[in-house]
Amino acid sequence: LVSVLSSAIIVYRLPWTWKCSKLLMKLIHAGLHTIAMILAIVSVAAVFEYHNASNIPNMYSLHSWIGLTAVIFYSLQLFLGFAVFLLPFAPVPLRAALMPIHVYSGLTTFATVIATALMGITEKLIFSLKNPAYSASPAEATFVNSLGLLLVIFGALILWMATRPYWKRAPEKNAKVLRPIGGTPKGKEAESTVTNDSNAHKSDLRISSEAARKQNLKLDEAGQRSTM
Amino acid sequence: LVSVLSSAIIVYRLPWTWKCSKLLMKLIHAGLHTIAMILAIVSVAAVFEYHNASNIPNMYSLHSWIGLTAVIFYSLQLFLGFAVFLLPFAPVPLRAALMPIHVYSGLTTFATVIATALMGITEKLIFSLKNPAYSASPAEATFVNSLGLLLVIFGALILWMATRPYWKRAPEKNAKVLRPIGGTPKGKEAESTVTNDSNAHKSDLRISSEAARKQNLKLDEAGQRSTM
Repeated sequence: LVSVLSSAIIVYRLPWTWKCSKLLMKLIHAGLHTIAMILAIVSVAAVFEYHNASNIPNMYSLHSWIGLTAVIFYSLQLFLGFAVFLLPFAPVPLRAALMPIHVYSGLTTFATVIATALMGITEKLIFSLKNPAYSASPAEATFVNSLGLLLVIFGALILWMATRPYWKRAPEKNAKVLRPIGGTPKGKEAESTVTNDSNAHKSDLRISSEAARKQNLKLDEAGQRSTM
Repeated sequence: LVSVLSSAIIVYRLPWTWKCSKLLMKLIHAGLHTIAMILAIVSVAAVFEYHNASNIPNMYSLHSWIGLTAVIFYSLQLFLGFAVFLLPFAPVPLRAALMPIHVYSGLTTFATVIATALMGITEKLIFSLKNPAYSASPAEATFVNSLGLLLVIFGALILWMATRPYWKRAPEKNAKVLRPIGGTPKGKEAESTVTNDSNAHKSDLRISSEAARKQNLKLDEAGQRSTM
């Protein structure tokens, strides 16, 4: 689940995909998130089944509360993302206004999912390790603790990749956002509405995707100083 | 601890502080983080004391592993931040290169501290609630679960504030970063090296801090589309 979720998050950040059409990448992003959502629903259903079969109460722990909150936000995110960014009806200013919220909400939900997994691991180790107990540090406890620590490192790496400007896809002209799959990536209009002093262009100048990416990076670095 | 840590993180994001000198704000940021570090060390020492007095092994749980990792990264962050950004020796390009890492590392450590707290709450509820047990959802369990959920909401709000471009302090000319306390905030050189097409200035034009902030926001919004 976490690996599908992570792939979905960083799919725009793989440089070899920058030549693929934006719509194709969006479909891959949405498709991977849909798979992750299905896996999440199956997992939650399995937990309820197991609890009911073993006479364990449902939804009593902080792990379950925060986990359910994450699943609810995740499904809202998927629904809104589909409606606004994938379907062709939302106007460009609405897309532009919602994109920072989509990215923030997605990354915060991702971090919350990691935190939920860590609480789940903690619960499971306490409940399952009895003789020797968790506090006696048997090999299994050390092994699972290491997996938990790796999960934190993995999550931190994904957040790093997802917030670095130099791994960001070049911006495209908004009107062409819905270019059909297989559209030629050459000579696409990749101009930004913002340019820098030392490199002033006429606003109707076509610039290559690579140049747009570099310029985009330059702008980001300027804005990056105290944001992230 | 979390509240001091949060104040330290968002101290540059309070609009009424934008007229204060950058050095004063840096000293407040560093001072609050130093207080948070002292509180963290006292807390960790108290846990070891309590464990030793009660014959509970130390450092066996995932909570302790990830918590100790967070404290180590936090002290590294404090030391490096002090050496690079507060002391006057580091050259401007080094500061500029390290700032995105400082911000990323700080916010990731903050999220890790929240996750550690959630694991700690989970452990404590399981160990302390015995009759009735945690799984029977006594009032205390519901109350503490609610506090845990509020902690997640609080953490998410802090991350939102810390990553929004419109709550960002205006950039200042790098050479003036070390302006002494009490230096007049009026007429400071706040020009950016980047400007936008529709509003081209000569590079030696002085623009007000407020204008720089708005321009900065404009640039950020352009770069914000797919970063955050």
